[in-house]
Amino acid sequence: MFSRTTPIPFTESSMRTISSVREMQEFSEQARKEGKRIGFVPTMGYLHEGHCALVRKARELAQIVVVSIFVNPMQFGPKEDLSRYPRDFERDSGLLEKEGTDIIFAPSGEEMYPKGFTTLVQVRELEDHLCGETRKGHFVGVATVVAKLFNIVKPHCAVFGQKDFQQLAIIERMVRDLNMDLTIVPFPTVREEGGLAMSSRNIYLSPEEREKALLIYASIARLQTSVRSGERKATLLKEEARRILNSKEGIAIEYAGIYDPETLTGIESIDHKALYAAAVRIGNTRLIDNIILEV
Amino acid sequence: MFSRTTPIPFTESSMRTISSVREMQEFSEQARKEGKRIGFVPTMGYLHEGHCALVRKARELAQIVVVSIFVNPMQFGPKEDLSRYPRDFERDSGLLEKEGTDIIFAPSGEEMYPKGFTTLVQVRELEDHLCGETRKGHFVGVATVVAKLFNIVKPHCAVFGQKDFQQLAIIERMVRDLNMDLTIVPFPTVREEGGLAMSSRNIYLSPEEREKALLIYASIARLQTSVRSGERKATLLKEEARRILNSKEGIAIEYAGIYDPETLTGIESIDHKALYAAAVRIGNTRLIDNIILEV
Repeated sequence: MFSRTTPIPFTESSMRTISSVREMQEFSEQARKEGKRIGFVPTMGYLHEGHCALVRKARELAQIVVVSIFVNPMQFGPKEDLSRYPRDFERDSGLLEKEGTDIIFAPSGEEMYPKGFTTLVQVRELEDHLCGETRKGHFVGVATVVAKLFNIVKPHCAVFGQKDFQQLAIIERMVRDLNMDLTIVPFPTVREEGGLAMSSRNIYLSPEEREKALLIYASIARLQTSVRSGERKATLLKEEARRILNSKEGIAIEYAGIYDPETLTGIESIDHKALYAAAVRIGNTRLIDNIILEV
Repeated sequence: MFSRTTPIPFTESSMRTISSVREMQEFSEQARKEGKRIGFVPTMGYLHEGHCALVRKARELAQIVVVSIFVNPMQFGPKEDLSRYPRDFERDSGLLEKEGTDIIFAPSGEEMYPKGFTTLVQVRELEDHLCGETRKGHFVGVATVVAKLFNIVKPHCAVFGQKDFQQLAIIERMVRDLNMDLTIVPFPTVREEGGLAMSSRNIYLSPEEREKALLIYASIARLQTSVRSGERKATLLKEEARRILNSKEGIAIEYAGIYDPETLTGIESIDHKALYAAAVRIGNTRLIDNIILEV
């Protein structure tokens, strides 16, 4: 369960693939000594335009761009989609080369979690809400692997997509709390035509399911309009969102609500700005999305 | 509860005291860029010869020696001695100057744990045994503050005393598991005449209590002799130790046993080497000590 299924192919470009923690650390240590800024984009691979936008952002901010590809077993629950999570290292490698990536860091499971591994990083409170309610332990897995990756890649900045809003909030809190000396750069969600947020899991959707998935963005657009028109009551906004999500059969809402963007706790009314976040299941596929509603 | 009681005095030596996280990080980043090795000794202050030996070790290993002084509230339980823990910044500062310390890092509680702090680092399993059984949460506090200090001081190596054997084992595991790019250097316990392990808490002992405390080392010496004479059975060794510790009134044994030095779990017999570790209470003072018994 911890091994990578796709071997790392030989490539002739200047982009390098590193699979050893030690080698990655030595590379980064040397780059930092030379005064070069390192920009980092952690991914689980099966890259899409959303990831490419993060890499371009890192390219803007740093001299050296490192992208990690690691499907982190620690952030999957026992009944989740670890084994079927999509992987295609060659395609990813081609995309990253086009974006001017310098280093792909692609460790094996054994390299990241050797025998006897027991340490956890936990960002309390923020992990309890939203996805944390159904995905117990997920964010401990995320925080732990990202802490490890930061210690391995030693970046000056790391770019994270806002699609995973809770993940971003947790990483930002971890960096602040543990005094990690790097900057977290949030990047807006990239959407397909029709508004569906880009996700590696979109590949799971049948054409009919993809149609239904568009309702997630429809709910976002509706709440934006309502807030612009003056609606401030979270219960009413939440009802609106749920009405849209329930307008077709076959969408199971896990959560869809209005939250404080700092604490991720539910709020009653919108003062200044609020987070609308939703997670739904369509068939076997779990999709999440969110938007900041600004008054 | 989070504020430092002793203000940082002005000093004319080349030794500097830094209290800001940002300033410490910038200093270390610059030193690393210049190719200088940073050696680090984390302490809670009220320094004794044991700490000074750690500083001398760091001095041997690095061009820049940083010593932190921070009484970490997160590693004290609600009924423990945080408020009465001994503090004397001026005396510590004098001692550290004599040992050729470059930087004292002495942050306030607010600097280390600002409002909204929620992140924990937990080294599972190793934290459960020995002191972990009575000091719930203690090692989460230790691991978390040490992770923070490593991110702030950015050392190449950090020296820890073997007196706190479990702490050392937990830090070593954390460094390995989280891929922190530094070397942990263990240093043998420094003892007073009579064998009492140096500890800031020894100041709490009355002359009579100090007499009783010598029995801890007596138990160590006895077990060393027994193992050298061929005794391998942990139960017998444990009985010997307890007999000595119980030979005077007023020593309450918290634990005293024979453990696997890697996993810290109890063992039945000694194959190669084993840890003898004990924690006792004498009056209000809790003392710990240990030795590696080698066959």
